[in-house]
Amino acid sequence: MITAITMIKTDPDKIPETAEKISSIEEVEAVYSVTGAWDLVVIVKVPDFEDLSDLVPGKISKAGAIHSTETMVAFRTFSQRDLETGFNLGD
Amino acid sequence: MITAITMIKTDPDKIPETAEKISSIEEVEAVYSVTGAWDLVVIVKVPDFEDLSDLVPGKISKAGAIHSTETMVAFRTFSQRDLETGFNLGD
Amino acid sequence: MITAITMIKTDPDKIPETAEKISSIEEVEAVYSVTGAWDLVVIVKVPDFEDLSDLVPGKISKAGAIHSTETMVAFRTFSQRDLETGFNLGD
Amino acid sequence: MITAITMIKTDPDKIPETAEKISSIEEVEAVYSVTGAWDLVVIVKVPDFEDLSDLVPGKISKAGAIHSTETMVAFRTFSQRDLETGFNLGD
Amino acid sequence: MITAITMIKTDPDKIPETAEKISSIEEVEAVYSVTGAWDLVVIVKVPDFEDLSDLVPGKISKAGAIHSTETMVAFRTFSQRDLETGFNLGD
Amino acid sequence: MITAITMIKTDPDKIPETAEKISSIEEVEAVYSVTGAWDLVVIVKVPDFEDLSDLVPGKISKAGAIHSTETMVAFRTFSQRDLETGFNLGD
Amino acid sequence: MITAITMIKTDPDKIPETAEKISSIEEVEAVYSVTGAWDLVVIVKVPDFEDLSDLVPGKISKAGAIHSTETMVAFRTFSQRDLETGFNLGD
Amino acid sequence: MITAITMIKTDPDKIPETAEKISSIEEVEAVYSVTGAWDLVVIVKVPDFEDLSDLVPGKISKAGAIHSTETMVAFRTFSQRDLETGFNLGD
Amino acid sequence: MITAITMIKTDPDKIPETAEKISSIEEVEAVYSVTGAWDLVVIVKVPDFEDLSDLVPGKISKAGAIHSTETMVAFRTFSQRDLETGFNLGD
Amino acid sequence: MITAITMIKTDPDKIPETAEKISSIEEVEAVYSVTGAWDLVVIVKVPDFEDLSDLVPGKISKAGAIHSTETMVAFRTFSQRDLETGFNLGD
Repeated sequence: MITAITMIKTDPDKIPETAEKISSIEEVEAVYSVTGAWDLVVIVKVPDFEDLSDLVPGKISKAGAIHSTETMVAFRTFSQRDLETGFNLGD
Repeated sequence: MITAITMIKTDPDKIPETAEKISSIEEVEAVYSVTGAWDLVVIVKVPDFEDLSDLVPGKISKAGAIHSTETMVAFRTFSQRDLETGFNLGD
Repeated sequence: MITAITMIKTDPDKIPETAEKISSIEEVEAVYSVTGAWDLVVIVKVPDFEDLSDLVPGKISKAGAIHSTETMVAFRTFSQRDLETGFNLGD
Repeated sequence: MITAITMIKTDPDKIPETAEKISSIEEVEAVYSVTGAWDLVVIVKVPDFEDLSDLVPGKISKAGAIHSTETMVAFRTFSQRDLETGFNLGD
Repeated sequence: MITAITMIKTDPDKIPETAEKISSIEEVEAVYSVTGAWDLVVIVKVPDFEDLSDLVPGKISKAGAIHSTETMVAFRTFSQRDLETGFNLGD
Repeated sequence: MITAITMIKTDPDKIPETAEKISSIEEVEAVYSVTGAWDLVVIVKVPDFEDLSDLVPGKISKAGAIHSTETMVAFRTFSQRDLETGFNLGD
Repeated sequence: MITAITMIKTDPDKIPETAEKISSIEEVEAVYSVTGAWDLVVIVKVPDFEDLSDLVPGKISKAGAIHSTETMVAFRTFSQRDLETGFNLGD
Repeated sequence: MITAITMIKTDPDKIPETAEKISSIEEVEAVYSVTGAWDLVVIVKVPDFEDLSDLVPGKISKAGAIHSTETMVAFRTFSQRDLETGFNLGD
Repeated sequence: MITAITMIKTDPDKIPETAEKISSIEEVEAVYSVTGAWDLVVIVKVPDFEDLSDLVPGKISKAGAIHSTETMVAFRTFSQRDLETGFNLGD
Repeated sequence: MITAITMIKTDPDKIPETAEKISSIEEVEAVYSVTGAWDLVVIVKVPDFEDLSDLVPGKISKAGAIHSTETMVAFRTFSQRDLETGFNLGD
């Protein structure tokens, strides 16, 4: 699985609303409103790298009220703990 | 559970080694080497916010060969998957 | 108690007005107009980290005339002096 | 009282130690290790602005293991709490 | 006396006009259009730090056509030369 | 007279010492330790622009313990005070 | 041949559309939507440096929905592998 | 002669047009559309520093479609080659 | 094929040498010394995204005299040339 | 002729010395110590773009005491002066 972490700056007064919209996108694993310079962080997991193309510039960036995005894609995962809470990071 | 996402800049020639060290820290959920301006992203999950204090400025920042870190803590998790499949992301 | 410090950039000609609005938000401890690159600094104290979610992305960011915010959450407080002036930093 | 908020970047592996040293400085109200791009935030309260000169460039900046500091001084305090509860934030 | 140095970014085509407006504000010592990344630098001198609150976020920031401001307040003046040209820097 | 405003970043633990050295340079009008991202601000007044060459890259930058400098030169002075009181700011 | 690499920031919701438009420009070798702080990267190959003038500030910058561009021109190519896939980097 | 180098960011789709306008300003020596983060570089030569005031914040900044400018003024010229091509850099 | 574009900042006086070293790495398509804020740009082509992990943080970052790297990975290639001439850019 | 404008950050206390060294390089048209965030600006004129490769990453970057460089190459010269006086700026 390929893990991508997308950081998003939204309109300051549309943070929760934008998060709800993005969390409804199928491949999205989780959306966090966060402290710091960014407003949201989106964790995405896809089988193949090519799937990211329709997802990040395609769906996530078009969620509305978005000023800018910056996506980091994981080259490699260094630790993996299956959690009973189900946050499966498996590669 | 409180989720924290720590972005790390390491010595350019010590990326995998630093990742291995950090991934051995107990509360660390996953460590990714990533594309983009940062070298590593660490996902941490702890029961209480106070637990982060010993973990981020305490253990992670002391892993060696680290130039700078920037931690984002999730205010709230918006996740569509756990709603459908009942997985509790624990936030 | 969890302490959060939110730095805010507003419309240059709406600094005092925005400060008044934010200071009326219940959990807000103090709002300062400040020197430097930011316009306002908001000190917030809440019992639990989760309370911040409705407060920062929820209320503060929606105070109007806000260009951007950056919230720092205190991992740990290193000094504590009960002040007769009542600025209680107790954890 | 004049309130100053000093943000500090330290050696990544000396965050708690530097915080302890600064918290021992008499006029320092509180020192927080924090999330985000900075490592520490120091809240200082002094009767007169001139007192800050010996405190910030004088004592705090000389605490050791400090890469850079950025001090914001409060022009004015807007605080709703002190109005209701009569607490005088001293500004 | 407290000296404050406010750097200002204006609309690119309103630099001289904005300078004229700010120079008419009573406490303003001098306004310079300058080389470099900023457009204007304003030197302000006030008896007490508290006077700055109505002046910088109050009057200067509301002069119109202003994109952003950054104010540096002098902790301490290290040299003082009374000049026959009257640029009195006295503390 | 040409006015130049030089902002300086020094070693964090050498701010007052560096200021003392620079204030001893003849053409230096004043040196301030300041709040904000810079550590010192130097005001220089010279009869001709060419005089700045030996002063800024020549003397000031060589004062020791200096990380970086950024000089803004006044294109023009807009000052309300000199008009009223007849003081000639010499620009 | 002169190789130029132009990085482009577009409207967040117009990334694929802008890429299609630019890819139809004759001298454009390839257009990538990419991870990271930029949205698109355009690889251009021209016989002479002067040809870039009509291409980058002329055609590419006028493709619409573009916030900013930054072009890097290759001084020198250090490795050259003719690929059966035809990505000819020949100088 | 005083040499000033002004870097300009314009609307992405108005680079050549803005260059033409600025090149028609009398004291302008040359205007270049350039690679890199800036769009245009303007070389200006004037007898006295004071002449720059009407030229940079006065005329160049008012050429229209300009987002921001940053002017560097030469303290000193270190090499001078009269070129048969007439690019006279003489001081 | 997955295309990655890695931008590199090296020691200022080791640009060509570092480029030679990187160009000897097998999967590296081309290395350019470039104009602008970066010193080198490396184009890499690999069959699978996972191959990048050993290549970028593994080999390229360890080439020596490297200050920092930033890798952009192509989500998708939009290329007009391959359509006409049938060349398969392998994405 | 191709015009390149290289901005240079040197050791703060080696500005004039570095300028002297660079000005001795044959193709260098002029070297200026300048106001602003950069320390030196080098104007280079070469017949062909390829000549820049040995000049900028080759000679100029190896002049010693250089922290970083950023080169802008002129796509096109818009110059009003050469039109009137017939001087050919060689672009």
